[in-house]
Amino acid sequence: MLPTILDLSSLRAAYQSGLTPLDIIEEVIARRAASKDPAIFITAVPDEELRSAAKALMVRAPEANSLPLWGVPFAVKDNIDAAGLPTTAACPAYEYRPDVDSTVVARLKAAGAIIIGKTNLDQFATGLNGTRSPYGAPRSVFDAAYISGGSSSGSAVTVASGLAAFALGTDTAGSGRVPAAFNNLVGIKPTPGLLPNTGTVPACRSLDCITIFAPTVGDGVAIRKVAEGFDAADPFSRRAEPTKLPASGLRIGVLTGGEREFFGDKGVEALYDQSIERARTLGATIVPFDYTPFREAAALLYDGPWVAERLAAVEAFLETNAVDFDPTVRGIIEGARSSTAVDAFKGRYRLEELRRKTEAEWGKVDVLLLPTAPTTYTVADMLADPVLLNGRLGRYTNFVNLLDCAAIAVPAGFAEGGLPGGITVIAPAFTDDALAPLADALHRAATSGMGIDRQAAVPDASRVAAADDGFVEIVVVGAHLTGMPLNHELTDTGARLVKTCRTTGDYRLFVLPGTVPPKPGLIRETDYRGSGLEVEVWAMPADAFGRFVQKIPAPLGIGKVALDDGTSVSGFLCEAHAVSGAEDITSLGGWRTYIRGKLAG
Amino acid sequence: MLPTILDLSSLRAAYQSGLTPLDIIEEVIARRAASKDPAIFITAVPDEELRSAAKALMVRAPEANSLPLWGVPFAVKDNIDAAGLPTTAACPAYEYRPDVDSTVVARLKAAGAIIIGKTNLDQFATGLNGTRSPYGAPRSVFDAAYISGGSSSGSAVTVASGLAAFALGTDTAGSGRVPAAFNNLVGIKPTPGLLPNTGTVPACRSLDCITIFAPTVGDGVAIRKVAEGFDAADPFSRRAEPTKLPASGLRIGVLTGGEREFFGDKGVEALYDQSIERARTLGATIVPFDYTPFREAAALLYDGPWVAERLAAVEAFLETNAVDFDPTVRGIIEGARSSTAVDAFKGRYRLEELRRKTEAEWGKVDVLLLPTAPTTYTVADMLADPVLLNGRLGRYTNFVNLLDCAAIAVPAGFAEGGLPGGITVIAPAFTDDALAPLADALHRAATSGMGIDRQAAVPDASRVAAADDGFVEIVVVGAHLTGMPLNHELTDTGARLVKTCRTTGDYRLFVLPGTVPPKPGLIRETDYRGSGLEVEVWAMPADAFGRFVQKIPAPLGIGKVALDDGTSVSGFLCEAHAVSGAEDITSLGGWRTYIRGKLAG
Repeated sequence: MLPTILDLSSLRAAYQSGLTPLDIIEEVIARRAASKDPAIFITAVPDEELRSAAKALMVRAPEANSLPLWGVPFAVKDNIDAAGLPTTAACPAYEYRPDVDSTVVARLKAAGAIIIGKTNLDQFATGLNGTRSPYGAPRSVFDAAYISGGSSSGSAVTVASGLAAFALGTDTAGSGRVPAAFNNLVGIKPTPGLLPNTGTVPACRSLDCITIFAPTVGDGVAIRKVAEGFDAADPFSRRAEPTKLPASGLRIGVLTGGEREFFGDKGVEALYDQSIERARTLGATIVPFDYTPFREAAALLYDGPWVAERLAAVEAFLETNAVDFDPTVRGIIEGARSSTAVDAFKGRYRLEELRRKTEAEWGKVDVLLLPTAPTTYTVADMLADPVLLNGRLGRYTNFVNLLDCAAIAVPAGFAEGGLPGGITVIAPAFTDDALAPLADALHRAATSGMGIDRQAAVPDASRVAAADDGFVEIVVVGAHLTGMPLNHELTDTGARLVKTCRTTGDYRLFVLPGTVPPKPGLIRETDYRGSGLEVEVWAMPADAFGRFVQKIPAPLGIGKVALDDGTSVSGFLCEAHAVSGAEDITSLGGWRTYIRGKLAG
Repeated sequence: MLPTILDLSSLRAAYQSGLTPLDIIEEVIARRAASKDPAIFITAVPDEELRSAAKALMVRAPEANSLPLWGVPFAVKDNIDAAGLPTTAACPAYEYRPDVDSTVVARLKAAGAIIIGKTNLDQFATGLNGTRSPYGAPRSVFDAAYISGGSSSGSAVTVASGLAAFALGTDTAGSGRVPAAFNNLVGIKPTPGLLPNTGTVPACRSLDCITIFAPTVGDGVAIRKVAEGFDAADPFSRRAEPTKLPASGLRIGVLTGGEREFFGDKGVEALYDQSIERARTLGATIVPFDYTPFREAAALLYDGPWVAERLAAVEAFLETNAVDFDPTVRGIIEGARSSTAVDAFKGRYRLEELRRKTEAEWGKVDVLLLPTAPTTYTVADMLADPVLLNGRLGRYTNFVNLLDCAAIAVPAGFAEGGLPGGITVIAPAFTDDALAPLADALHRAATSGMGIDRQAAVPDASRVAAADDGFVEIVVVGAHLTGMPLNHELTDTGARLVKTCRTTGDYRLFVLPGTVPPKPGLIRETDYRGSGLEVEVWAMPADAFGRFVQKIPAPLGIGKVALDDGTSVSGFLCEAHAVSGAEDITSLGGWRTYIRGKLAG
């Protein structure tokens, strides 16, 4: 019996227990037929083709779970190419039929995923609400009166209603995050360039990101790892330069004062405050920060010259097919006609000035924790005031790609009316992996289920392990101890003292003859029974550690030192030949006592 | 007796021998008075003020050479602010008098340098020839019929004629390099953003770089290190991320086929070929590469939307003062009026596509070696055809800032007519330090002197030491040897085999009991007399080395291993307690023989 929400661990377990991709596809076909929302798909892959795809996979890779996404059904926003299916960008007259998959779809298929259809969107990915499409407006899975969010409207709804295990979106202003918030999902918004855009219809080419809607952060990260990677065919593709966040004592920036704007939505505001408390409980330090420069950068996306990128993307088509545009979308895009190249460069200058100001805020915090969207609206309200209300939805998302950040949107719980709210964690470029443990922990702490299933437990199997922060630990014994002559070789690299402790009892300490400054030699003798030696454990950046080790002169070296807490940590050892005849100071209990004695003497 | 060219080591030696900053300033005053070129300075600091500055320095820092640039006279291009002196950008009507120094000038003054004047330039730094100024055209120090190059015309001539030890230029298209070539100087063109532009008149704000004209590469680098560093006030300022180049086997890309264009100048062509031979003699591997995408990027600077940055920089002034512009400069800048924001973004897209193509070339080469300028012209010829001929000068320079590179221009010798030619070494962002040893060696190999003094020897004291390439060496003894089970731990990090060799004779090798895969223990016993053990030396990135050391389990560790060539290299050692009772395989001469024997047995 499959759960409502098709998360990866449930699918893997089902396959492990004997179900086949064809079984899962039959379930997807049945669910799709039973779906109440007629606006989700622009093109649904026909039932028979789905069955063929499942059978083909079983021939290609017969063993269950033998590919990373073996038999995982997924949906694709209809501005991303999938071979043989039309691409419309929600503009029927724009339709073309690509012969080849977009790079990301090709990678997902190669990993065993099965595409079930192309999903609805705000036309040309211009919007955050989901109503700007001639194919209808997908609805919130929790209340059909409400918008699904957009522009990746259909993609979010497929996952949230259990029609697919994940779906691809795109995100320029927030299109991969806002619909996640409105449908109780995770939205993975990678660092710009991490997922290549080859084979997608551009909105703003310099900013567009392919995104992933998934039930859990762990699923989203696993799928992202399949989809990501440099692609020379996309000029904006980048090679990942993974960036760490502190493994402990994370400083999380939260809105304060007048920058807390929910347009009167007390429900979402309460969910935001609850999320902050969850982060605090998880051990983070909560730091109010100044959102002003981020908000000002956000405003550039639609009020500045970047709209000209949308015009550049469809310029020729607009010449001939102006009448085929959604009127709101057309109005926005045509607004760029009066922008000059001077405006474009001035916009860039303004962005760089704001980036500088945001850097000052990044000095205070490691991660931003923001509402994904400050509120939501009914379809009727949105259609009545489509530009103003849409603009409000992007208040906390529009800056993210302009400022080259990674973001993960996660569920934050449900407000009294029964609609979900979302929060997003955001950090600078290439913190995609580093952000994931926090995002996962916040999702789990919200206990709000996954998608339409509010009671579902987030599976343990998808838990994201805490990340490595790039520091390595080292035990120092002598001249590198705090206050000793070579301690600066640690502190100069940004190393920090972790603790003072003792070795196990089977170490002896000797004074190495003729060393300047004086140094000890630490030797383990497994049959020696002493009471251990006082040492310090330091954490040091890995690259600095490499250079540090490189500089250590014989007879000293770095091996593993056994500590009295049972751990074994890299640290100073000495070649045995060097201590023959040397003074044994083991009884002093450590180098510091020896040096004190020498100074006193 | 001071030499003609005021290089830093000569100045330091003079100060060491008892001369004072006032003595040097008197010499500068005398030389300035004797100068034959009336177009070098827009504002010369008056003699009395120069003397006061020298005296003030002697009060502030009385000890000779007690500051990095103690008593070093320098000139500043007149689009960079110096407190109390007018800034004109070579447009008299544009003049303003800044109260504060530009960031770079402030840093140089703080380091003890003494400003002697503001130098002439192509108006608004728009040009590469030096004739576009109402203050006249500075001339080549070798032939007054010829252009000095621009736009940093006066700055190059001050240094080349011995009026200053160094001078600041700016460089958008090549303005800090072309005048170096024409005046037998070094031009340091830092990575964009390395030197902050706070307090300069923009040309193209997103591309402009402050540069340094100096007699030697070593001088230029030393001055750059004083001037560089992040400045929050400049939105385009960047924190350095120093990038290495290989310490040996450098692959140097050179022009080939139809991309070798010298506009008929056989002299410069011959100097270029001689420079290639010098690079080969220095040990580099010469690799022909495809210049096409670099040339196409270069063309964007004046034929694409970037001209709109020049318009953005002077837009308000142009409204009111169009008649005050140099007609050629005005024509170029006004050409941007028709550019739209769509054009600006399309230009960006084109640049990113070309960047991708150039990355393929960077896969083949580490450094580009190009002519700085393909030829030169007389002032009369330039004035007769100012746009076409100027464009030719930028053929090999215009792409460098658009593609985010560092560059150093150095002298390449003299052609038959007595005019110098120059070459430039270019590599990706933040190779500023890594490029310097090569540039210095090429300059020295050219034996063409410094500036106007063709016979001067480049001082030994300014030699740039070979750079560290970020790799550390490690001796492996057992399971990490080539072909052994853990060798991938080295190769996975990009490590490379340096050599196979032997330890000194006082090491013994043991089989560690119970290790999987089997591992040896290497122990030094200073009184043991064996014949050494076969080991391999690998070079590994420092950060990977740090992580590698961190993972080594006890009783193994990393210390220093003495090799039979007399060196001592980081490598595997073993705690002595672990080999008591272990099998001694020293007589086999190494781990490989032991493993072969086991497999055979």
